[in-house]
Amino acid sequence: MNLTDLPTPTLLLDHHRMTANIARMQAIADRLGVKLRPHLKTLKSAQAAEALIAAGASGITVSTLKEADYFNQRGISDITYAVGMVPARLADAASLMAAGADLKIMTDNLEVARAIAKAASQNGVKYKLLIEIDCGDNRGGLQADSAELLQIAEVIADSCASLQGLLTHAGHSYGVDNTAAFEQIAMQERDAVVMAAERLRAAGHEVETISVGSTPTALFARDLSGVTELRAGVYTVFDMDQQSRGVCETDEIALSVLSSVIGHNKAAGKILLDAGGLALSKDRSADRFRPEVGYGQLCDADGRIIPNLFVTSVSQEHGHVRVRDDSDYARFPVGSLLRVLPVHACMTAAAYDYFNVLENGQVSDRWDRVNGW
Amino acid sequence: MNLTDLPTPTLLLDHHRMTANIARMQAIADRLGVKLRPHLKTLKSAQAAEALIAAGASGITVSTLKEADYFNQRGISDITYAVGMVPARLADAASLMAAGADLKIMTDNLEVARAIAKAASQNGVKYKLLIEIDCGDNRGGLQADSAELLQIAEVIADSCASLQGLLTHAGHSYGVDNTAAFEQIAMQERDAVVMAAERLRAAGHEVETISVGSTPTALFARDLSGVTELRAGVYTVFDMDQQSRGVCETDEIALSVLSSVIGHNKAAGKILLDAGGLALSKDRSADRFRPEVGYGQLCDADGRIIPNLFVTSVSQEHGHVRVRDDSDYARFPVGSLLRVLPVHACMTAAAYDYFNVLENGQVSDRWDRVNGW
Repeated sequence: MNLTDLPTPTLLLDHHRMTANIARMQAIADRLGVKLRPHLKTLKSAQAAEALIAAGASGITVSTLKEADYFNQRGISDITYAVGMVPARLADAASLMAAGADLKIMTDNLEVARAIAKAASQNGVKYKLLIEIDCGDNRGGLQADSAELLQIAEVIADSCASLQGLLTHAGHSYGVDNTAAFEQIAMQERDAVVMAAERLRAAGHEVETISVGSTPTALFARDLSGVTELRAGVYTVFDMDQQSRGVCETDEIALSVLSSVIGHNKAAGKILLDAGGLALSKDRSADRFRPEVGYGQLCDADGRIIPNLFVTSVSQEHGHVRVRDDSDYARFPVGSLLRVLPVHACMTAAAYDYFNVLENGQVSDRWDRVNGW
Repeated sequence: MNLTDLPTPTLLLDHHRMTANIARMQAIADRLGVKLRPHLKTLKSAQAAEALIAAGASGITVSTLKEADYFNQRGISDITYAVGMVPARLADAASLMAAGADLKIMTDNLEVARAIAKAASQNGVKYKLLIEIDCGDNRGGLQADSAELLQIAEVIADSCASLQGLLTHAGHSYGVDNTAAFEQIAMQERDAVVMAAERLRAAGHEVETISVGSTPTALFARDLSGVTELRAGVYTVFDMDQQSRGVCETDEIALSVLSSVIGHNKAAGKILLDAGGLALSKDRSADRFRPEVGYGQLCDADGRIIPNLFVTSVSQEHGHVRVRDDSDYARFPVGSLLRVLPVHACMTAAAYDYFNVLENGQVSDRWDRVNGW
């Protein structure tokens, strides 16, 4: 199928670029001597997970139990659910385990640990728990030197559940744009979780899994001594947010939105696309280092970058593109096709139920996605 | 069903508030002597459209042909597709008309008008065309005094298609926050399209429909002489974006996201919710007039506002709530439920396949939605 046969806006996945990105990260994990457990929050697709595992991944990471169920039903059962557990979801987690999932759950909260211990003991469910550590991101996680770390481990040790290990995520690596800073945050990420592991081991607990990861730190880590696994997700397709801080090149970005030109507002100096806030998301993550990117980089229908042409603003169903000069109206007539390299791949992809998989410029396949909760 | 039986995050629709919002706008349209053609881009639900039509709406507005098809299949056939037409969609539009839809399409482009005329004549399809006018929003539309306006009308007059009329949207009403400014933009909106209609009539064209609308201008318009219909959408549920500029009160907001507390990061002074960027959208429209709102206003599970508690930042699956003081941790334990009043209802609702319809605090129904393209 040709691109001109697709309705717009629609999501394109460049299979060649994705495969290269997957191979590159697997080689990094292999070199660093750690397992790779890719985060499927970006691709949310069983076909993508199969490609990752075929390339050497040891299992997957997910951000919802709906994702966990989707992947487990499709034969991908080694799953870490890397969002804080709540007691109301323990029954669903138990059902997933009964359905064959080797599920790891996570918390940073003593009360939740007690609820897990209680549910494990009452129902004989051997929940596997990761304790979340905050390595500087200030999202979830305990400080590595906190008292609660040992308290949670003790509560779990006294139950039918088991302590699987520790997990951290250096989300603050998204706030910097140079090699030295990425390397430093990768060390912070490693050091926080290794220190926490040492405290647990000193208190007599086994710590099997010591898990770190974010795309920038994974790509720039030099030494992961003490760490057992790496998680990352957006590296599979990259995006303009990653490009804006030097984590990837535009020709590594494997995801794009195919869009139609639907209008010219010559009085306002704009081309209008049918890819607006819903089709691209309103994520503005590239603003810090490349504010000109706006809501995405324009490419022609074949994926070649169009220099200095960006989605400068969006409304719900309209992408507004400030023209460089009046010749752009003739170059991009109403009805013509353009591609947008998205700012944040995870956010953009979530607006679509499937990927149009491209090989050699043709749509070779359609991969499904699991969205929602 | 009780709220505690719902998985989170999930979308709640307060039926009582929605009904009151619908009645209020219908009364305004009746008073101004115009038809009301609500924009279903916000609710995207057949049950909602039925409620609007039962209250007096003359038809509906949509933003995709997928929406048009969804509504037409459910018996709501008087539809204006208010996004610029492209030639590649003319066959789909013809199919919808063959399936019974009284579809109105729109352009502001002479080349597209020629394509419509050609397709109409070749295939005997009586497309009904609205010409889009830009009244100051700088999105789509011709200037009311432009030469192309008459050229498009002539091209259509010479074809099997028919000129239905004119349409404009004062999206720039979202950029102001006081009655005088809303009233002034409502006059601009009216004057632009009425002037364009006078030019068309002077040139011998019939102009049946003269359509204006945006929620702020619809609510504040004092006189719509010359206008035949009003379009607006977000007034059905409102949101914090509208509240931030004084267009509604928080107790008129009919849409909220039910969310679970999934963590406390006491070192960072945060409560974490399971409603993040995907569940709320990354829309920051309230920033201009109420930057403290961030990504949403927190309410308790029963919908009562919690003063000064907002979703201050988001990552993909996490909403970060800066606590007011340490007592908030005990007040909102992990596992407890909170509601978020969204910043931009249209963007937030698009992350969900259905509404949980609330009556008297109970889930009384589930309404489906049509998302995507």
